[in-house]
Amino acid sequence: MKKACIVSIGNELLNGQTVDTNASWLAGRLLEKGVLTAGIWLVPDEKQRIVKAIQDASELGDLILVTGGLGPTDDDLTRDAVAAYLGVELEFHTEILRIINDFFERRGRKMAPTNRSQAYFPAGAAILDNPIGTAPGFWARKKDIDIVVMPGVPSEMKQMFTGHVLPSVEQSLLTARVVCRKLRCFGAGESDIAQKLGNLMERGRNPLINCTCGSGEIILHINAASEDAAAALEMINDDIAAIRGRLGEWVYGEDDQSLPEVVGNLLKKRHQTIVTAESCTGGLLAQMLTEIPGSSEYLLAGWVTYSNEAKIRLLGVPEKIIADFGAVSEPVAQSMAVQAAQKSGADIAIAITGIAGPDGGTDEKPVGLVYIGVLMDGVCQVRECRFSAMNRHWVRLRSALTALNYIRLRLEV
Amino acid sequence: MKKACIVSIGNELLNGQTVDTNASWLAGRLLEKGVLTAGIWLVPDEKQRIVKAIQDASELGDLILVTGGLGPTDDDLTRDAVAAYLGVELEFHTEILRIINDFFERRGRKMAPTNRSQAYFPAGAAILDNPIGTAPGFWARKKDIDIVVMPGVPSEMKQMFTGHVLPSVEQSLLTARVVCRKLRCFGAGESDIAQKLGNLMERGRNPLINCTCGSGEIILHINAASEDAAAALEMINDDIAAIRGRLGEWVYGEDDQSLPEVVGNLLKKRHQTIVTAESCTGGLLAQMLTEIPGSSEYLLAGWVTYSNEAKIRLLGVPEKIIADFGAVSEPVAQSMAVQAAQKSGADIAIAITGIAGPDGGTDEKPVGLVYIGVLMDGVCQVRECRFSAMNRHWVRLRSALTALNYIRLRLEV
Repeated sequence: MKKACIVSIGNELLNGQTVDTNASWLAGRLLEKGVLTAGIWLVPDEKQRIVKAIQDASELGDLILVTGGLGPTDDDLTRDAVAAYLGVELEFHTEILRIINDFFERRGRKMAPTNRSQAYFPAGAAILDNPIGTAPGFWARKKDIDIVVMPGVPSEMKQMFTGHVLPSVEQSLLTARVVCRKLRCFGAGESDIAQKLGNLMERGRNPLINCTCGSGEIILHINAASEDAAAALEMINDDIAAIRGRLGEWVYGEDDQSLPEVVGNLLKKRHQTIVTAESCTGGLLAQMLTEIPGSSEYLLAGWVTYSNEAKIRLLGVPEKIIADFGAVSEPVAQSMAVQAAQKSGADIAIAITGIAGPDGGTDEKPVGLVYIGVLMDGVCQVRECRFSAMNRHWVRLRSALTALNYIRLRLEV
Repeated sequence: MKKACIVSIGNELLNGQTVDTNASWLAGRLLEKGVLTAGIWLVPDEKQRIVKAIQDASELGDLILVTGGLGPTDDDLTRDAVAAYLGVELEFHTEILRIINDFFERRGRKMAPTNRSQAYFPAGAAILDNPIGTAPGFWARKKDIDIVVMPGVPSEMKQMFTGHVLPSVEQSLLTARVVCRKLRCFGAGESDIAQKLGNLMERGRNPLINCTCGSGEIILHINAASEDAAAALEMINDDIAAIRGRLGEWVYGEDDQSLPEVVGNLLKKRHQTIVTAESCTGGLLAQMLTEIPGSSEYLLAGWVTYSNEAKIRLLGVPEKIIADFGAVSEPVAQSMAVQAAQKSGADIAIAITGIAGPDGGTDEKPVGLVYIGVLMDGVCQVRECRFSAMNRHWVRLRSALTALNYIRLRLEV
């Protein structure tokens, strides 16, 4: 079975300025296809060190993925290093220079002379185009070893890997299979979920279930190993059914589905429209909903009514309600939702008002206190949430995700 | 000068389930003390691989930091591997077993028999206690090389490093200092910047300048090494002045400043207020502005006018302009900004309308076409941007950042 090694290049990876997320992402994608990663090397922008890491990697794996060091500046030495490892010269590719030149022209900019260096590649390497950046990658071979070199910018690397590398990896031979699936949960803590899952989470079990959490979301990773892909898939499907049975409405989606995507699909299915009225989340909820392609089908509009003045004048929240109860209160959340629905004619309105911090909290209304109102089918429900006041970003993110989860639960009924 | 190497151990680091943040954290703390990290190795829980990584590391550094593989289970092999590298036996420490036992007793739990393995250490090693976990670390020496072994759990590792390792590192001889600063740029490509910086970016130069990029932002990392911290700081300040001189308005901030933060500071300084009117970015710009604590001082409100209907009814964009020019057009961007300012009474209004994709593009108006309007001091300027149609997320992020940059440039005048 093919084994992979990963070499991540860049001084910034060795001085604490950048965490290398590329290697972990690549290892995860490879494992999904049944390819194990034998080792990861992080090396600085130094030619001899890059060559040495590739040599060490070639002793352990027959697929070496290299990221970084393909930029146009003098500290980008990956092309030279790989050529040295392969024992070949760098060749200039006129047509690639033209593509890089076009890349700049399309953006109305002039290509700098240094970009010329990005049109040099080790002789014999296949060039991997980079539609979203100036640094093409390349794929070279030495004996039985494939070396794939990609840019270090994560978005460019991911697109190149998914487009050019993964299809070839899939073709090549893999017999034993590891199948991975994910179940995504919201509304319960890690220990609640572990308790309900019980024996399903035993170590050494196949499928193996791991749990990761972030932003209030719990993701269950289910990995089944078998000589036979179909058998592995069946084992995983049985587990998914069992987990869904035990966790019920806590499970909101599978694999890479996000909460905004799940909510969007429910809205499309019901042909309903939605609007948002946000105070403390300041547009985050609208941004999450509109990140989903095709969201214009259901999201009509959103208000960011950050100041009291904006709540009163732009949205029409009665001044007296704010004066009587304060901007962060159940009546204000309710009024925001009702007004937003009325002004827009949407089927559903969701309103958030709260204290994101770090300032603005009091004993009575501490940082992390958030009211979420959902108006739907003529009924407005407001829930009071008290999130831990970890930091501003966290309170806002938890608020927006919790709001999405409330909509999901009401739409799923 | 002392150099460090880091070896991170654990199967989870090689299957995409865990990103190794320990190595980056350690490298950052070491650099603050003037110690450079020469390389980072990520290896699985396999004895021979751990031994080999430590051997490779010992050729490059004289301080080797090892994390992970100190747990009580069969796949925790770091103790064995380090003993093999040192050429010594493992020794059992009764007093450590008692400490581990106490750790469980204090929590009302019973120690499992497997935890006994955590009381074995390579002969001659100094034991580093772990007040918040069961796995003690240790510090061994072979010739001139120091090997420090710590748990992989980040909180335990950090406490052990800060408590036991850092003070010794500080004491040990280090006279030379490395000082790091960052300059953050927007509005130019990596190669434009490299060209303007020219000789400043030469390899081997001190200070050494590296360049990283993401989301259209370029970050210059400036590292100065000197025997004397004050001298290093002076070198860096000279470089910062030189870079600012060459790059001009491309530089928007230093170190960890973000574009929304810089814009917020400028607004506060000028006592001006701002509103947003967003179509394709769907609340992203408002969300970025309100992520900054204290943003209620200047951000009054925001509109997410995603549908044409919302642009007309909620914001007051004349229906005829949309009919004549289309929703993605210069006149609509202008009208959105003008209406938002009028309705809110804010000093500045910023409007974004564009095609984020993946659908909705035409030959005439492709995905990535975005109009950004800034109304300020009674003047509305609209700029047409053509971003690469990489993906929806990218187009939206570039749009919001570019809008922030336009505001910055107008506020800085």
